[in-house]
Amino acid sequence: MLLYDVGNTNIKCYDNGEITNVDDFDENLNFYYINVNPNIKNFKNGIDLEPHFKLKTSYDGLGVDRKAVCYAVYDGVIVDAGSAITVDVMSEGVHLGGFILPGILAYKESFAKISTTLIFDVDENIDIKKLPKNSNEALNFAIFNSIYLMIRDVLEDKKLYFTGGDGDVLCKNFKGSVYKKDLVFTGMKRAIKEIKC
Amino acid sequence: MLLYDVGNTNIKCYDNGEITNVDDFDENLNFYYINVNPNIKNFKNGIDLEPHFKLKTSYDGLGVDRKAVCYAVYDGVIVDAGSAITVDVMSEGVHLGGFILPGILAYKESFAKISTTLIFDVDENIDIKKLPKNSNEALNFAIFNSIYLMIRDVLEDKKLYFTGGDGDVLCKNFKGSVYKKDLVFTGMKRAIKEIKC
Repeated sequence: MLLYDVGNTNIKCYDNGEITNVDDFDENLNFYYINVNPNIKNFKNGIDLEPHFKLKTSYDGLGVDRKAVCYAVYDGVIVDAGSAITVDVMSEGVHLGGFILPGILAYKESFAKISTTLIFDVDENIDIKKLPKNSNEALNFAIFNSIYLMIRDVLEDKKLYFTGGDGDVLCKNFKGSVYKKDLVFTGMKRAIKEIKC
Repeated sequence: MLLYDVGNTNIKCYDNGEITNVDDFDENLNFYYINVNPNIKNFKNGIDLEPHFKLKTSYDGLGVDRKAVCYAVYDGVIVDAGSAITVDVMSEGVHLGGFILPGILAYKESFAKISTTLIFDVDENIDIKKLPKNSNEALNFAIFNSIYLMIRDVLEDKKLYFTGGDGDVLCKNFKGSVYKKDLVFTGMKRAIKEIKC
């Protein structure tokens, strides 16, 4: 089964358990897809899964990528860390709400735009328990501690799932959390299974 | 006494207790200034106060604007909310460190750059205790709760001072905190007094 997850910066392809970044869709094959990129409109033989997610939620306008990862988790907090970082809370199959932070690269670019003195190297190993003593620490601390505190604020005693390009980096700050590279595709496969039933 | 605080986006002038935004310096008068904008270099009859801040700190490369607000506070946490939001901790006259978040506008622009679906109106009255139920709430919650949690994380039982263009907005989330529009100038006046002693 061929699946595509079309994001704002990448297209991810899932083919029999293998995930790769691709530039385009395979002309000759049927596939299922989700898409959050308003600039991509031609999906050839693709079937849009968006109408098939029956997620219980009172959130108005939840992006299909967030619906898909939530569809893969019955109970827990899901962090999808890409160009933006989405954080969603699932409780016994019901989506309770969530929020959106800038992605790590978006933070970095945001600082650089404010001033040339705020150009720095991202350091995922920054100690977020120690008050910074220079600009490089001050900016890395701001990014990684913001993300950490925001997740912890909604976590309670729930299981924590990370996915997305920066998910494995962020995962390290939370003991007992898991990184699932294919979470969006797990959700998509559940939707496909429900169509076929 | 005429003082200028040259920031990344504004020049603030302090003239006998009155603070105004200005475009340039008065040609005919002597004044004191601080400057963090690398693009502004001609200060006419101005005296740069940067070498005169004798702040006790082990922070390497602290911006002169942060030195100035810290110079005005013996003990407390100081939040200067402008194009960036700087947070600094003072303890009995010693600067212990600090960090830098994007300013509110920088967050908003950062989201807009990620995707056109993340364009939204800033709402300073967002309830940061309630899990968001739509995109507008999700983005405002992310900004204001990030800032709130990051400040609370270093606050302990210290007094909290806000300054800068968005300081009055952020102040509302912390009971007992104060907004001091002229904090940077209070610090500059202390430095001038020390020169004259």
